[in-house]
Amino acid sequence: MGSSVKIGIITIGNELLSGFTIDRNSAWIGQRLLEIGLKVHVKKTIADDADMITKSLDELSQDCNHIIITGGLGPTLDDITVKTLYEYFGDSPVFDEEYWKELEKRFKAINMKVPTLNRNQAHKGDKVKMIDNSFGTARGMHFEKDGSNYFALPGVPKEMEGMILSYILPHLEKKLTSKVHCETIRTTGLPESILQEKIVDLIESKNCDVAFLPHRMLGVDIRLTTSNHQSLLDLKDQIVNRISKYVYGFNNDTIEKIVADKLKEQNLTVATAESCTAGMLSAKLTNLSGSSQYFNGGVVCYSNALKRDVVGVDSDLLDKHGAVSEEVASELASKIAKKLKSDIGIGITGIAGPKGGTEKKPVGLIFVGIFYKNNVYIKQYNLTPNRKINRQLTVVLCLNELRKLLEKN
Amino acid sequence: MGSSVKIGIITIGNELLSGFTIDRNSAWIGQRLLEIGLKVHVKKTIADDADMITKSLDELSQDCNHIIITGGLGPTLDDITVKTLYEYFGDSPVFDEEYWKELEKRFKAINMKVPTLNRNQAHKGDKVKMIDNSFGTARGMHFEKDGSNYFALPGVPKEMEGMILSYILPHLEKKLTSKVHCETIRTTGLPESILQEKIVDLIESKNCDVAFLPHRMLGVDIRLTTSNHQSLLDLKDQIVNRISKYVYGFNNDTIEKIVADKLKEQNLTVATAESCTAGMLSAKLTNLSGSSQYFNGGVVCYSNALKRDVVGVDSDLLDKHGAVSEEVASELASKIAKKLKSDIGIGITGIAGPKGGTEKKPVGLIFVGIFYKNNVYIKQYNLTPNRKINRQLTVVLCLNELRKLLEKN
Repeated sequence: MGSSVKIGIITIGNELLSGFTIDRNSAWIGQRLLEIGLKVHVKKTIADDADMITKSLDELSQDCNHIIITGGLGPTLDDITVKTLYEYFGDSPVFDEEYWKELEKRFKAINMKVPTLNRNQAHKGDKVKMIDNSFGTARGMHFEKDGSNYFALPGVPKEMEGMILSYILPHLEKKLTSKVHCETIRTTGLPESILQEKIVDLIESKNCDVAFLPHRMLGVDIRLTTSNHQSLLDLKDQIVNRISKYVYGFNNDTIEKIVADKLKEQNLTVATAESCTAGMLSAKLTNLSGSSQYFNGGVVCYSNALKRDVVGVDSDLLDKHGAVSEEVASELASKIAKKLKSDIGIGITGIAGPKGGTEKKPVGLIFVGIFYKNNVYIKQYNLTPNRKINRQLTVVLCLNELRKLLEKN
Repeated sequence: MGSSVKIGIITIGNELLSGFTIDRNSAWIGQRLLEIGLKVHVKKTIADDADMITKSLDELSQDCNHIIITGGLGPTLDDITVKTLYEYFGDSPVFDEEYWKELEKRFKAINMKVPTLNRNQAHKGDKVKMIDNSFGTARGMHFEKDGSNYFALPGVPKEMEGMILSYILPHLEKKLTSKVHCETIRTTGLPESILQEKIVDLIESKNCDVAFLPHRMLGVDIRLTTSNHQSLLDLKDQIVNRISKYVYGFNNDTIEKIVADKLKEQNLTVATAESCTAGMLSAKLTNLSGSSQYFNGGVVCYSNALKRDVVGVDSDLLDKHGAVSEEVASELASKIAKKLKSDIGIGITGIAGPKGGTEKKPVGLIFVGIFYKNNVYIKQYNLTPNRKINRQLTVVLCLNELRKLLEKN
């Protein structure tokens, strides 16, 4: 698939080598490439050093015919990357009057003069195509040599991403022998292996690349890639029908966005009473701008006293069943909905760990209650020994339950 | 510094190339190496493919004399990495009865039989030193060839980290001509450039490597590295004296851990009333096991009705000054402390954005109130246009204020 395009990535920066910056740029590029059916062959990270840049270009061009370089395009005089690239491709930059005027215009619009430092960015040679930068002043560079393409992009994520989307992907798509289609089905609530088992027969019968992509324990994406669009849509429908309970969205959907949309559509409001997740669900529900439309607020009732005094859970219930129980999760949900005059109330109580477990109530035992239309829906989870995972997972599982409820109604 | 040790890292895995997994392993390794004064020379990421592995070993061994390989040490039969490494170093693995017995013992302790699949991991050659794995069954491998060292480690972070700490760092430290000392001063509340200005004279006069390491907008680490321990300690003291207000900890300290320790030490409890951060402060305060000792709970009072009805903020105050005001932050702090019978109350109100700003109260305007010993300390922040950054930054700034208060008292 994807013809003879072979891609290498070079990321430049000392902070990438020392680990102060985690290399998210190349991961982002890898994902965008995969969406058009292309795989990255090799990635290399090096310091901002002329010899290393030259050597890596030599090395990668042995195997790859498209090389994407990010980082090292700043405005400082001693910018090694730009200088090295011009030398490597036997080109010499001259001052680019036209781009300088463009920069002056841009800065004038915000009442500023172009800093002299930026003069370095207004140069170009005659062997290079400059790539527009919608978010900054450093343009990208596109060289061709011996049938191979070399793209140099800034390291600033937004600027780099803009150039990949507007220039490099269209360039690559033209080279593909067939258009590749890609759809991602986002699921949560089932581990990869069980998910696979459930749909293995569907996958086997179709001429479609299927990848299972677990996001730690929070969910599994199923990515379908093929050049046959109809067969992609058919398979997608079949899979979604088979495992609809676990599918929360597609492609770039997030579960909080899906839930937020449904709440707004149905004109519903939510309130939360969180014990072990201690505000994480509320924080997630308010990640999106405009969340006050559907989120009223919540109580982080870490102590029993709060569950009783602020949320209004019956103290007999707390004594009889303990804070981590179906009964208390249920009361938290219904009481918080009433107290905060909300259509939906969510109660979460559990043992996040790593300490505090007992034989009867081990670490990882979590109860979620969702009050809606005079019913309380209860879910019990037996998660992991890990505090962080338990808390994150509970939030995602809970949002997925809420999604299912809102879809039914 | 650090003698002639030259380090290369090879990470193996398709999911790293496609960007589904972000390469945090090599960043983590880079950080640990820097702490002993070593820099990574080059990093390469490749697929689990014999030719690519062989080629990359050849390439990196030209420049590097220590090569760390991570990933591709699973228990499956077709494990290419292990096979390729044995071939590359002209070694042939035979069944390792001793390690198999060890595995049987380990599995017996948890009432299981060793899966047959794991037999592959109980092999070793006679040119390899095996590296113990405290967290899993796949051992690491250490080969030597032509004066260079090659370490192959699993890709599972915990297992990889264990081997770096217990085996590779000690190995490297022996090779260093001089012991390198490293200390990190963790700060928050000042941007990198201003921080630099404040201490530039101190730095210039000392024979010490100083690096400023910003963590997005959340804080800046100042890392001091030198072989002269006394000069390191002197400089550290001088810097901390100069900017003590902004220093929250050292090395691997986190701000929530520092605050938690002080709260426990002083036997104090905290309650929160969060508007724009909507539970993020509570979630952070409860990241650590045992947080119920100092954290009572909180209210996520997203709406005005909740600020009034649940927390008890005076409605006249809300009408007169608006929800985002010094006065409301102050009331949130003092009322929540009283309501939840806590020593300390924290109130947060602000405009996280990207919408909802006015000329008088723009996006990024945040008020934090901390009630303690019958006083309320108020901080006003004018942050960024970015919702996510504003919310994260507020939590960190607020924890830093709390830290300063607890240090004074």
